[in-house]
Amino acid sequence: MHTANHDFAGWMRAQLAQVESGLSRWVRLDAPAGLGEAMRYAVLDGGKRLRPLLVLAARDAVGGQAEAALRAACAVELIHAYSLVHDDMPCMDNDVLRRGKPTVHVRFGQARALLAGDALQALAFELLTPEDGVPPAMQARLCRLLAQAAGADGMAGGQAIDLASVGRSLSEHELRHMHRLKTGALLQASVVMGAACGAPGPQAEQALAQYGAALGLAFQVVDDVLDVTQDSATLGKTAGKDAASDKPTYVSLMGLAAAQAHAEELRGQAHAALAASGLSDTRALAALADMVVRRSH
Amino acid sequence: MHTANHDFAGWMRAQLAQVESGLSRWVRLDAPAGLGEAMRYAVLDGGKRLRPLLVLAARDAVGGQAEAALRAACAVELIHAYSLVHDDMPCMDNDVLRRGKPTVHVRFGQARALLAGDALQALAFELLTPEDGVPPAMQARLCRLLAQAAGADGMAGGQAIDLASVGRSLSEHELRHMHRLKTGALLQASVVMGAACGAPGPQAEQALAQYGAALGLAFQVVDDVLDVTQDSATLGKTAGKDAASDKPTYVSLMGLAAAQAHAEELRGQAHAALAASGLSDTRALAALADMVVRRSH
Repeated sequence: MHTANHDFAGWMRAQLAQVESGLSRWVRLDAPAGLGEAMRYAVLDGGKRLRPLLVLAARDAVGGQAEAALRAACAVELIHAYSLVHDDMPCMDNDVLRRGKPTVHVRFGQARALLAGDALQALAFELLTPEDGVPPAMQARLCRLLAQAAGADGMAGGQAIDLASVGRSLSEHELRHMHRLKTGALLQASVVMGAACGAPGPQAEQALAQYGAALGLAFQVVDDVLDVTQDSATLGKTAGKDAASDKPTYVSLMGLAAAQAHAEELRGQAHAALAASGLSDTRALAALADMVVRRSH
Repeated sequence: MHTANHDFAGWMRAQLAQVESGLSRWVRLDAPAGLGEAMRYAVLDGGKRLRPLLVLAARDAVGGQAEAALRAACAVELIHAYSLVHDDMPCMDNDVLRRGKPTVHVRFGQARALLAGDALQALAFELLTPEDGVPPAMQARLCRLLAQAAGADGMAGGQAIDLASVGRSLSEHELRHMHRLKTGALLQASVVMGAACGAPGPQAEQALAQYGAALGLAFQVVDDVLDVTQDSATLGKTAGKDAASDKPTYVSLMGLAAAQAHAEELRGQAHAALAASGLSDTRALAALADMVVRRSH
């Protein structure tokens, strides 16, 4: 397996251009009564697009269908974006800053933020089920994977654990379970959905799911590290928030150095899973794992 | 077309038993950190189940697949239930009473209500995409119909118009457009999804869509009538709310008698559409249209 990839920056630019164009086309301004404006504000011109990149990299690795993959990439990003809108609301994290901009409820009011989030979730499933262009069986499987990752056994369930854990101390096992649901499920689903745009076979599918699980945990460990090592301006969101709200994190649990070492270990696991996949070109996936662990915001 | 149906009460009992059993099985208590409890509270043991009944009646009319129809029936009810949970929240209608019980955010807190609603929407799409038992092309079409009805061009869009219309006077055209999205889209989708569990052909499909549109509007007109003619105890929710919050309604626009006559007219349109469908047994659908217009809560 090559981990060096001279074209990664170019590959990423090309994928991001496609994703931004897809999101801008599909999240329409003309939704009624300002709803479209709030939805576009929540989705466009911000974010690292990590989940879409994972979908597209996994699709590249398995030689899957381009139209299905672009729709899946945008759909996972819509789910991610809606979760941020709802998570920032006063009854949840009460955050006023996101990606360096006022959060959606600050800009558009709480009611419209709530509805914009709801509509973004519905739109994700609409994107996955076009009249034509994607085989129906693939549409159904993509919907199943996304719904499972977004719901009570995935992201929403993880957020519920997170809420319930404020002010409590969690074991590493509990913290890991929380993050596996809260952020891990959708990150892993991104990889698995990209693979579902092709027909990689069981060995590669399992390896990609393992890659996605390792990457998902690494993402959260690094997030916790950055929350204490970076300032708000660099992060584009409020730094030190977790400590201030007495939320358990990998850093509060393991200490900073051990959390950083754990992230590196998970990066190694992600690479090892790619090596075991039997797929010939996993360079973009490998580079994304490196990017997740070595990012500064 | 028969409108008399000696077995309607029995048909309805049997369908409701199936729906309650399906919802109880699929909305699981073991979702993390109390989320399952909040989801079940929002969904079980309450509600008229009009949308599921429409799905199942349409399925009966076209001779569609039972497993697909039950899943579709429960999925539309989950979307309806989540919309009520979010709609009742303080930043929206701020309602404390629903189906005679404290609303979800009163009982479980706003954060958990928000997440329970989000998880219910995801679960709706999970129900529509089982590993087996429903043909993939049918799964994909059911997801598409539900996503379109729930999102910015349907229910969520209608709620956004509703929010923006408080304190404004709307024309009948604007009011109709709002309700066509806010409640009409999901009611019509229930009928169309039931039909999509079979293969009724274009004439019947179009007629059922017309039936669903007429029934959807009739439902809202009657809702507005009941808001001024019934008390809170009968409705199981706060009566007189629309007038108090200065929301435009069919009654404020047309007057009570004209609104009642309009509901009867729409009932006639629903029956006419069934007569034009060419389907041999539309008695349950006909009886549901009568029930919607002549209900007292």
